[in-house]
Amino acid sequence: MSMIEKALAHAEAGLDGARERWFDLLRIPSISANPAHAGDCAHAADWVAARLRDIGFTAAIHATPGHPVVIAHHPGPGGNAPHVLFYGHYDVQPADPLELWDSAPFDPVLIDGPHGKRVVARGAVDDKGQTMMWLEALRAWHAVAGGPPCRVTVLVEGEEEVGSPNLDDVLEARAAELRADVAVISDTNMWDINTPAISTRLRGLVYAQIDLRAANKDLHSGLFGGSALNPINALTRILGEITDDQGRIQLPGFYEGIAEPPPEVLKQWQALGFDEAAFLRGIGLSVPVGEKDRSALERLWARPTADINGIWGGYMGEGSKTVIPAEAHAKISFRLVPGQEPAQIIAGLRDFIVDRLPEDARVSIQVFSTSPGIEIASDSPFVRKAEAALAAEYGRAPVLQGCGGSIPVVESLRRILGLDSLLIGFGLEDDQVHSPNEKFEWRCFHQGMRSHIRLLGALAQG
Amino acid sequence: MSMIEKALAHAEAGLDGARERWFDLLRIPSISANPAHAGDCAHAADWVAARLRDIGFTAAIHATPGHPVVIAHHPGPGGNAPHVLFYGHYDVQPADPLELWDSAPFDPVLIDGPHGKRVVARGAVDDKGQTMMWLEALRAWHAVAGGPPCRVTVLVEGEEEVGSPNLDDVLEARAAELRADVAVISDTNMWDINTPAISTRLRGLVYAQIDLRAANKDLHSGLFGGSALNPINALTRILGEITDDQGRIQLPGFYEGIAEPPPEVLKQWQALGFDEAAFLRGIGLSVPVGEKDRSALERLWARPTADINGIWGGYMGEGSKTVIPAEAHAKISFRLVPGQEPAQIIAGLRDFIVDRLPEDARVSIQVFSTSPGIEIASDSPFVRKAEAALAAEYGRAPVLQGCGGSIPVVESLRRILGLDSLLIGFGLEDDQVHSPNEKFEWRCFHQGMRSHIRLLGALAQG
Repeated sequence: MSMIEKALAHAEAGLDGARERWFDLLRIPSISANPAHAGDCAHAADWVAARLRDIGFTAAIHATPGHPVVIAHHPGPGGNAPHVLFYGHYDVQPADPLELWDSAPFDPVLIDGPHGKRVVARGAVDDKGQTMMWLEALRAWHAVAGGPPCRVTVLVEGEEEVGSPNLDDVLEARAAELRADVAVISDTNMWDINTPAISTRLRGLVYAQIDLRAANKDLHSGLFGGSALNPINALTRILGEITDDQGRIQLPGFYEGIAEPPPEVLKQWQALGFDEAAFLRGIGLSVPVGEKDRSALERLWARPTADINGIWGGYMGEGSKTVIPAEAHAKISFRLVPGQEPAQIIAGLRDFIVDRLPEDARVSIQVFSTSPGIEIASDSPFVRKAEAALAAEYGRAPVLQGCGGSIPVVESLRRILGLDSLLIGFGLEDDQVHSPNEKFEWRCFHQGMRSHIRLLGALAQG
Repeated sequence: MSMIEKALAHAEAGLDGARERWFDLLRIPSISANPAHAGDCAHAADWVAARLRDIGFTAAIHATPGHPVVIAHHPGPGGNAPHVLFYGHYDVQPADPLELWDSAPFDPVLIDGPHGKRVVARGAVDDKGQTMMWLEALRAWHAVAGGPPCRVTVLVEGEEEVGSPNLDDVLEARAAELRADVAVISDTNMWDINTPAISTRLRGLVYAQIDLRAANKDLHSGLFGGSALNPINALTRILGEITDDQGRIQLPGFYEGIAEPPPEVLKQWQALGFDEAAFLRGIGLSVPVGEKDRSALERLWARPTADINGIWGGYMGEGSKTVIPAEAHAKISFRLVPGQEPAQIIAGLRDFIVDRLPEDARVSIQVFSTSPGIEIASDSPFVRKAEAALAAEYGRAPVLQGCGGSIPVVESLRRILGLDSLLIGFGLEDDQVHSPNEKFEWRCFHQGMRSHIRLLGALAQG
């Protein structure tokens, strides 16, 4: 029996304990966006550090101006095996609207679903569940071999869901201890429940808030309507022009510099037979939006977007109030693809708004996130080893896919530490990430944990 | 000494008592919107009925599903004098935000201002102060002549600030006793503190809420952006097109049937020398909106508007959340002018939205208010008599003005009772109606009371 097989057998025998630990972490409401939960974030960091110490790691909790970061090390057996950095995050999105949850978001439950058991809780998959998979894989290696088969560093942050505002500083300050040979991140999806995937493209993100102000107080629409500027009218006019009839985004210079995926990648994507109609049917929709001349996977993985994520102003209560408000607000974000410069997108947004701004309106634009789109070379030896490990677990080769979301740490790891990331996630499209009733299939967790046991073994082999 | 002069002299001698009665009514927190104040509304109705009985009226309090209505009658001296209906309301707006008041809202104070003394309290002007002016005028006539010089009916309701939901039923049920020759309403403004005004045009109102729904849940903008419909994007596209670059409203048929004010009215308005720059400066603005080819007073009094009064959807908290929400909402209202049909405006709004609705979006439109714009013939004998009474008091002819707001009772009186209204108000633009520190100038109250004494005398003369 190989060490990998021993570790797998040990993990199989300890599934109940793995589930209990996972549930313990899920019970901590570590909502990074809400300052009232700062104590819970600190609690989650302590918990993660303690679990790492349980399995032989030296773990430290580093304070930041926001929530703390856990960094832990295990020297492994020594020798020529590569140094692997595992990254995860213990923070979660807010759980509201609470009334749409079928069970309490921070009281995890194991329920039946079409794929067998599933765990429902905020953070079930994103990213507590995915983080626990590799923590449990490290635990299994520790049990059977006294530690991982290679040198391992662990980095678990608590501000991923708010744009990781302090992570770059940590990476810079602690570059010496963090500079590994490759990073492993589980925060993405499988192709489907039977088919693993390695994500080699990620979209970037620019996220901004627009505050428009007009009169110095709320006005009566009867007495002032027809003379006084209404900032909601103005804001809808501006935002309504951002995308044209063909789904093209109108910010100046928006598409400049985009690196189109090579023809062989597009061909590979086409061969995946992605069923966009089924994808949309699952969320109650039927007609795709976005650029009309692009395929579905291009639109989702290789083309930028503009989405208004929130809007508010004036009277939002029951019934009517005839007010012309003093202010109107929106949050808007752009998913970016390789070749687009976040700074240029922000400048384009500013110009677009200012060009359309009524004379009496004042605008302020706050930028909360900026990260570029990323492409990871798919022919590296680390990718080959990961492909082999996943194929051994699933009996089929993983798909090399794109990912429409943004994982800013991937860009930070590359820029600050010169590290490429292996993005191997086990989520499914219907996991309700960021939504009520977030879930993670037990089968995905289970095979994900097994895959990480195999991946550690594969990476350790020369 | 004429009877009018005697009544004026009596009123002058009794100013302290008038102020005390006015303050008594202001001390009753008759907030119609708040069910906790239902007892205060009933108290205010009792108080008004008692004051009418003091001066020889038969007064009854009529219960409604909401707050009660006071109806009172005085037969006058008999003869050919017209039957005059005075309308007012004893209810007031909520006083919050309380912290912005310099004195307690229901503890009226007389303080110094640039025009001499002023009364500060919730309801000081709207409409307790304006109602007390004509109640005191009736009191003076009662003292010197045993009653008003003509038959008078009084209607004081308690739900004006919540849209008068029960008033039409009262008007219909009691049409026989309410059907007078002319109605007198003091709930509008003067042109300025030296210049009285009769409002002969009122704008109407259509107020609607638009609810747009897309996916069956909130979505992650990274995983779904580029394929899934964003209802905020869709709503801003639709609403952003409602008004064009020239300030013209784009609903189909929106301007059909509008009765333009006659050239002599426009000429008269032009002669008023309205200073729109100063008007806008007072609210921190400088550039008028609305139709570019119309004068300021046309835009405020005789042209319709489209204002988005509220908008909301998606994430409205601190920081960022990368959500594509399932829903987006807006409240929108249109001020209407004579000739526009509210039903046609609503149909036009519906068509406008449906024409632009993405295939996957569902819309519902709730209508909260509909009232047409009103024009009151300015060449009626009642208007002539009112002009003469106001000219006698102020030494200058009153302005025949428009009013950009809506006073739905005017339309109800016309539709149900066939009655035209004389809208003679003594408020000023800076009275802080519906806002903290609502005030009414003592001089406006004083001359308003005197004007009503003169008006009663003038209307009574054949």
